[in-house]
Amino acid sequence: MSKIVIGNQIQKEFKNNWKYCIGTGRLGLALQQEYLDHLKFVQKEIGFTYIRGHGLLHDDIGIYREIDVEGEIKPFYNFTYIDRIFDSFLEIGIRPFIEIGFMPKLLASGDQTIFTWEGNVTPPKDYDKWTDLIRAVTQHFIDRYGVEEVTKWPFEIWNEPNLVNFWKNADKREYFKLYKKTATTIKKVNSNIQVGGPAICGGSDEWIVEFLEFCEKEDAPIDFVSRHAYTSRQPNKVTPDYYYQELTNNTKMLEEFKTVRRLIKSSAFPHLPFPITEYNTSYSPINPVHDTVLNAAYLARILSEGGDFVDSFSYWTFSDVFEERDVPRSQFHGGFGLVGLNEIPKPTFYLFSFFNKLGDAQLYQDEHTIVTKRRDGSIALVMWNLVMDKGEGREKEVTFEIPVEASHLFIKRQTVDEQHANPWKTWRDMGRPRFPSREMVETLRGVAQSLIRTDHLKAENGKISITVALTKNEVSLIEIIPVNDETETYIGLDDSLITSY
Amino acid sequence: MSKIVIGNQIQKEFKNNWKYCIGTGRLGLALQQEYLDHLKFVQKEIGFTYIRGHGLLHDDIGIYREIDVEGEIKPFYNFTYIDRIFDSFLEIGIRPFIEIGFMPKLLASGDQTIFTWEGNVTPPKDYDKWTDLIRAVTQHFIDRYGVEEVTKWPFEIWNEPNLVNFWKNADKREYFKLYKKTATTIKKVNSNIQVGGPAICGGSDEWIVEFLEFCEKEDAPIDFVSRHAYTSRQPNKVTPDYYYQELTNNTKMLEEFKTVRRLIKSSAFPHLPFPITEYNTSYSPINPVHDTVLNAAYLARILSEGGDFVDSFSYWTFSDVFEERDVPRSQFHGGFGLVGLNEIPKPTFYLFSFFNKLGDAQLYQDEHTIVTKRRDGSIALVMWNLVMDKGEGREKEVTFEIPVEASHLFIKRQTVDEQHANPWKTWRDMGRPRFPSREMVETLRGVAQSLIRTDHLKAENGKISITVALTKNEVSLIEIIPVNDETETYIGLDDSLITSY
Amino acid sequence: MSKIVIGNQIQKEFKNNWKYCIGTGRLGLALQQEYLDHLKFVQKEIGFTYIRGHGLLHDDIGIYREIDVEGEIKPFYNFTYIDRIFDSFLEIGIRPFIEIGFMPKLLASGDQTIFTWEGNVTPPKDYDKWTDLIRAVTQHFIDRYGVEEVTKWPFEIWNEPNLVNFWKNADKREYFKLYKKTATTIKKVNSNIQVGGPAICGGSDEWIVEFLEFCEKEDAPIDFVSRHAYTSRQPNKVTPDYYYQELTNNTKMLEEFKTVRRLIKSSAFPHLPFPITEYNTSYSPINPVHDTVLNAAYLARILSEGGDFVDSFSYWTFSDVFEERDVPRSQFHGGFGLVGLNEIPKPTFYLFSFFNKLGDAQLYQDEHTIVTKRRDGSIALVMWNLVMDKGEGREKEVTFEIPVEASHLFIKRQTVDEQHANPWKTWRDMGRPRFPSREMVETLRGVAQSLIRTDHLKAENGKISITVALTKNEVSLIEIIPVNDETETYIGLDDSLITSY
Amino acid sequence: MSKIVIGNQIQKEFKNNWKYCIGTGRLGLALQQEYLDHLKFVQKEIGFTYIRGHGLLHDDIGIYREIDVEGEIKPFYNFTYIDRIFDSFLEIGIRPFIEIGFMPKLLASGDQTIFTWEGNVTPPKDYDKWTDLIRAVTQHFIDRYGVEEVTKWPFEIWNEPNLVNFWKNADKREYFKLYKKTATTIKKVNSNIQVGGPAICGGSDEWIVEFLEFCEKEDAPIDFVSRHAYTSRQPNKVTPDYYYQELTNNTKMLEEFKTVRRLIKSSAFPHLPFPITEYNTSYSPINPVHDTVLNAAYLARILSEGGDFVDSFSYWTFSDVFEERDVPRSQFHGGFGLVGLNEIPKPTFYLFSFFNKLGDAQLYQDEHTIVTKRRDGSIALVMWNLVMDKGEGREKEVTFEIPVEASHLFIKRQTVDEQHANPWKTWRDMGRPRFPSREMVETLRGVAQSLIRTDHLKAENGKISITVALTKNEVSLIEIIPVNDETETYIGLDDSLITSY
Repeated sequence: MSKIVIGNQIQKEFKNNWKYCIGTGRLGLALQQEYLDHLKFVQKEIGFTYIRGHGLLHDDIGIYREIDVEGEIKPFYNFTYIDRIFDSFLEIGIRPFIEIGFMPKLLASGDQTIFTWEGNVTPPKDYDKWTDLIRAVTQHFIDRYGVEEVTKWPFEIWNEPNLVNFWKNADKREYFKLYKKTATTIKKVNSNIQVGGPAICGGSDEWIVEFLEFCEKEDAPIDFVSRHAYTSRQPNKVTPDYYYQELTNNTKMLEEFKTVRRLIKSSAFPHLPFPITEYNTSYSPINPVHDTVLNAAYLARILSEGGDFVDSFSYWTFSDVFEERDVPRSQFHGGFGLVGLNEIPKPTFYLFSFFNKLGDAQLYQDEHTIVTKRRDGSIALVMWNLVMDKGEGREKEVTFEIPVEASHLFIKRQTVDEQHANPWKTWRDMGRPRFPSREMVETLRGVAQSLIRTDHLKAENGKISITVALTKNEVSLIEIIPVNDETETYIGLDDSLITSY
Repeated sequence: MSKIVIGNQIQKEFKNNWKYCIGTGRLGLALQQEYLDHLKFVQKEIGFTYIRGHGLLHDDIGIYREIDVEGEIKPFYNFTYIDRIFDSFLEIGIRPFIEIGFMPKLLASGDQTIFTWEGNVTPPKDYDKWTDLIRAVTQHFIDRYGVEEVTKWPFEIWNEPNLVNFWKNADKREYFKLYKKTATTIKKVNSNIQVGGPAICGGSDEWIVEFLEFCEKEDAPIDFVSRHAYTSRQPNKVTPDYYYQELTNNTKMLEEFKTVRRLIKSSAFPHLPFPITEYNTSYSPINPVHDTVLNAAYLARILSEGGDFVDSFSYWTFSDVFEERDVPRSQFHGGFGLVGLNEIPKPTFYLFSFFNKLGDAQLYQDEHTIVTKRRDGSIALVMWNLVMDKGEGREKEVTFEIPVEASHLFIKRQTVDEQHANPWKTWRDMGRPRFPSREMVETLRGVAQSLIRTDHLKAENGKISITVALTKNEVSLIEIIPVNDETETYIGLDDSLITSY
Repeated sequence: MSKIVIGNQIQKEFKNNWKYCIGTGRLGLALQQEYLDHLKFVQKEIGFTYIRGHGLLHDDIGIYREIDVEGEIKPFYNFTYIDRIFDSFLEIGIRPFIEIGFMPKLLASGDQTIFTWEGNVTPPKDYDKWTDLIRAVTQHFIDRYGVEEVTKWPFEIWNEPNLVNFWKNADKREYFKLYKKTATTIKKVNSNIQVGGPAICGGSDEWIVEFLEFCEKEDAPIDFVSRHAYTSRQPNKVTPDYYYQELTNNTKMLEEFKTVRRLIKSSAFPHLPFPITEYNTSYSPINPVHDTVLNAAYLARILSEGGDFVDSFSYWTFSDVFEERDVPRSQFHGGFGLVGLNEIPKPTFYLFSFFNKLGDAQLYQDEHTIVTKRRDGSIALVMWNLVMDKGEGREKEVTFEIPVEASHLFIKRQTVDEQHANPWKTWRDMGRPRFPSREMVETLRGVAQSLIRTDHLKAENGKISITVALTKNEVSLIEIIPVNDETETYIGLDDSLITSY
Repeated sequence: MSKIVIGNQIQKEFKNNWKYCIGTGRLGLALQQEYLDHLKFVQKEIGFTYIRGHGLLHDDIGIYREIDVEGEIKPFYNFTYIDRIFDSFLEIGIRPFIEIGFMPKLLASGDQTIFTWEGNVTPPKDYDKWTDLIRAVTQHFIDRYGVEEVTKWPFEIWNEPNLVNFWKNADKREYFKLYKKTATTIKKVNSNIQVGGPAICGGSDEWIVEFLEFCEKEDAPIDFVSRHAYTSRQPNKVTPDYYYQELTNNTKMLEEFKTVRRLIKSSAFPHLPFPITEYNTSYSPINPVHDTVLNAAYLARILSEGGDFVDSFSYWTFSDVFEERDVPRSQFHGGFGLVGLNEIPKPTFYLFSFFNKLGDAQLYQDEHTIVTKRRDGSIALVMWNLVMDKGEGREKEVTFEIPVEASHLFIKRQTVDEQHANPWKTWRDMGRPRFPSREMVETLRGVAQSLIRTDHLKAENGKISITVALTKNEVSLIEIIPVNDETETYIGLDDSLITSY
């Protein structure tokens, strides 16, 4: 059992960069009711500022079309669906983080696609028509939502062009060309719109360097530098239903953050913002780790420390309403979502919900703990007990000594662990029903609640001491709230006069 | 540790007579939004058939008024509010169980009142005007809601006329007169409406006998015989905020049920239905027992066995929106409600919610247990560990051996005890805030959830064995549901390939 | 001006066969929030019993998939989306009218498709896999929704196989084969499920005859005979945005109903039910007539008389959320919907809403009028002034003499015409905005209300006389409701004492 | 027919002082669901900033109570209900305009009461206990809602103390004493809270003068001077259901505004804000004028010009949920409400809704017209045709010549008149049902919609000309909105190809 003594001193600001942005399945899914229900659910409890996903220009939203006007083929820009989608986002209180892509079929130079939904990943066959499209889309957003609103939306060009399946041949030169033409077009519509790239996945950080060199040399507009981060190894088993991978240490992700930050600092644009526009444990939408308590315990440290190195980092994704690997084939299927099908929150949802209760004044931080003070003087801390080995046991006990100003404190602890807020466990108890009945869904929602325990403590010498036992991969939020004790106002109060008390 | 072996045989029908009716604060409160929110909440989870409360004819609803028409005073019947109230009830899916009373001020023969809200408890000063009123009200209900609907509403005449504070001088003769005139008037409007009385509280069962003799002799209409039942002793301490009483054994209430049933059986109307139109532990709306887990554990046996003796029994009341002892002065104040102020369910709410999951085929019953089979073949049981002594400890462990048809079973257990679904405990941790802030209310709602635990069992020799440990005054629902195990359909499934599993 | 004298005699039952079923865009769209909002809107006001649309087996819902299990390709049936869709329908209070089709890509024998969304219209390449699929789907519906529910759903095999674009080569023999195999498979799952076909469009009624001969000869199960009906001529102009056609007389549709009914009567199955599973003026989803008042006035006679000849007729479709001709490119675009994009009801919506107020006892009917008595004794009539010529004017005035029992009558008239409930007109005033702003949508919803006018009439000699002037293509509902006049109960009432009255 | 030529010049700012505050029935009614539904309805369409009503300290809310603590009587402040009420207001987006009153029974020096609900109008029997109460209440508001919020709430002391029925003996000296003690106490809790009085009704403006002299001489805190204004004469007939009065000219009210403003200007506090904290045509809650179109036409000029003279004026009241003259006895009963029982908006509701569309730049104003420009460049005008004489006819026609910048204009006109948005008229057609059925309510809601007419105009020489005919007592809003005409983007568009167009 370890003991942690918290001081009175504020160490530094705790930044909620984890809350800036959240990932989503392709934007066309945002027409769906279940998608929107999940988004409302997440926003009510957590409240991200931006949402980012693929497919703005994909053919299901159908912005780019061509029509035959007396024998001449002309572009037609159809905003019916994208208006409905962005209207929904803004109503729900979240802003688009624009990702420019993929290629409309009619503009594509090839037929290479990605995902079951067939996003075209080839360069435009006609860059003039492409920039016409970009101009029309950007201008339409301003016409509909106003300059003040749209200049708050970052515009990121393409997604992971360093991968051959996301960008034909991972052709760097072609990407830089696309970037410059697109970014320049957007800036011409309104120079205050923020543009950026290259949105690469890990493993090719030379792209960062070369991209910034290109921007400098070619005078391409650049307002931020983006990258992705996943910490899973190559798969060790792939089945029709699941994709299994081991995870590296979570510190690997933090190292990647630092590395890229250094690259930016030593570039011609040392002060550019650096958002991570996607991250998660595994990059596979059918890796069961996403449904587990482990996923939450593993990512806790990223939420705790990531903001020290990057300006924002966007969890991929908020919901299992997702189709990159086809329509989900089971209630739990290893999807990325904070929220599973049928609006069932997963353990990682609670990780975010717990961090959302932290204050902005950091009192203490270690690899398993973050302790903060909130504006109202109360204290909020999150603890986690990440155990990456197999097997039972591995509990952990910690005693905190915490300075407090009040004499009476209300203690509220919320817990997610193998036994609580773990619908995946109950779903297995149910025999892993692929298409659960209404009753099963009710049960799964019922168990998907964090355990709440409360207590009342009296300070001694301006301090309280709290001992917390954590089970394997538990994550707990503890709030320590000064009490205005009204007990004495109940004249003649005596609980012992209640039978059995 | 005890062991209970459940047989395959259905012992008898388990009747949900506990679900027939629920009590409410005076009907005028049903105009309030918080009242209606609580009622919707209760109906969604439990779904009582009828709702019964005082004050139909009280002046706040204002049905009876008089107007001066060119010097002559004439009655005016105002249905503005009662229509709104009954419209709300029917929309929410609950029917009125009519209680005729109290006396409109303008019709009263005296000024004796009861409760902070001053219900007048004196006989009418003019029985003709009274019967005119009864006729008009009954006819209006039929005009608005239809004969088919209104003939489903029981009409009970007055409330606890055997108490001097509810009926002037507890004048039995006067009550019988009121009863006959009122019941006869209602029957003249529509003879299919069910009428009854005498709605007495305990301790005067000679009223039952004499009332039935009166009906026989005087040929008064009578369709049911009603009575109330509370099991608390005289108060041992009364403070401005609380009223403390000890409880007798809960078997006393069951004895009272049997006694009155015997009296009816030996009367001239041996087959009359016998509803208990009010019951609870304490009859005081400021007795803290109502807020406790004990209250749930204590009443469990009543819900389990009460239906064997009475046709229905109506818990008093569904909500702490209640004003008999003035506007509640604190979040928890010992109110009768299943639901506390700010829509916070109390432990007894879960008792009802658990019983609502039982089937109608009883497999086993003892003083701490009821085991049933449901129509879909699953098994549901409720257990409780009532401990009326003070002090810690007093856990209990029981092993059930239960016959099952399926080979795999999903086990779902829901628990209310001192640590779970007990917002009263957390409220004390908070320093008993009288008027809690929004944040406090959120916490109280958060803790007011039953603990859900699930498991997966395999049958051996057509049986499963479940061992359950109950803490002091715990009530648990256990559902045993056949599993259609789909695990094998996931080709190559291997949870051990997930890091740490 | 004409005069119509209504008699007291009930002529016959007025059947609401128009209300049995409504058409929808492909089922995959039912995942969308806007789709579901429109459906709720329509059901609240009208309340159809069934909903029928294409695409149950289309790849966007994704029921049929194949997976590689250790080198062997096996079918996988994914019900994630169809469960969500049918759950939604049943929650909203409408049942599926199943249409079996189109062909999953992996089962298709060819690559011919129809519509922007590419429904495959070729026969199965393997009839065993096809019947396996049909069996699995039917069985799943029963597992999830119960036998009692599913045996209420008609199953119709394919759509318009007599057209080469809906069924490869319009191959009749192949269709009969598909029909028999499919219907037989369904009946094997549960013999009480109703199956039928051939769901042909007009112009090939020999299919009806041969289909019924086939069923007789081959002993194929057959519970109903279905057909479609549209009354528009070949297009006289086709533009990228609109498809223009003239309409024939609406009596042509009624003639078609009669013709097919005769064919059935003279077949081996003379008593089979005959549902029209699609009808409308134009069969094009971009014909502007659908947005007009004319469409309502034109179809009024079909709703009035169609039920005399067919067992049901299903308007195609309830909503402009529809993609057969791509994502709609403008607020109004000639879509089939009763409800336009952004939940704006069109004139034809009100036609249905008006007919929904009719009683089931017909007192009078002519080609412009239907007069009925309702169960509560009130009278409801719908009138229309169909004018298919161009130009202004063409008003019409009719006087009704109607027998009534009450002495005082409340008259409520609701009107849709060029000036009222005609958002298309206002949209043109706005400059035909393709993607209207929120404010514009509010205005369009505001104008899309029927005009309501009320009056109070006194009967003379048991009759009232009402003169109604109708503008060109107006449709009006008039309700004549007995009044219980309470005016005299207001003592001393004198409106003339109000300033200016 | 008159012609009005509007210039390009902005005459002055048009102030929406009419929107600052709205009156309500006693605050205790705000616990009711129907009350809150009406308030949401009004706020959605109009959006007042403050709400003011009687009864904060009345015994139904129950703030002031006394308890016996071991023989000693101590005050107890119960905030259960007032918290719920103010929570509701703030959630709905409206702030309390505090009115201090009436006297809790336990603090009252006498038993004189006002209204059916018996507000006590006597001075406190103990000014120390009174100021303790005021201090506790004010402090509680700050504790619960924060200083920033509460310092936005004006605190007005008492109501109409110049009337003997609102303040015992209309004792001016006693009022001044109450005022000073109360205002001083509030300021001691927080000196930024705004306090004011004397809240007199008309006819005693010497109170204004003497009150201000008192404040100066006695150094009493004073932040605003308030008064009421009604324009009805003495009743000419009073019946059990209705109270009939003639109205004076509406200019009388404007004269009163000016008079009091002059009195303030010549006082020692010349710059004090001057809110009218109540106004309406009649001061009686059973005067049928409130339900009529006349009421709207009459008040239009007050809304148009009132803001020139007073800082705010608060219409009395938003809803017919009101009990000063007992529970309403009929659907329409002459209540003050913008919204009638059963959430049916009355004509005056639309007057406010129309004014809510005006811009803040006034282009033109006369006694029947107000023309404004909005920030987005569109024009909005309200016209009314007040006719206080009896009889039919009295239509009016006006032609406007209005300068516009755009070449195409969309014209939207909304109308309330005898035939439209006049549910009172339809209710009379129905036979004046006191307690209408659900169906009747639906009809009344249906007719209570303003008529919307739209048009499209082309500018000529930078102007448009609009001719408007107004019926007797019509009020119309006309919006003139620049059109971005997209008609030409529909290639080959030809409406004449639609049958009959």
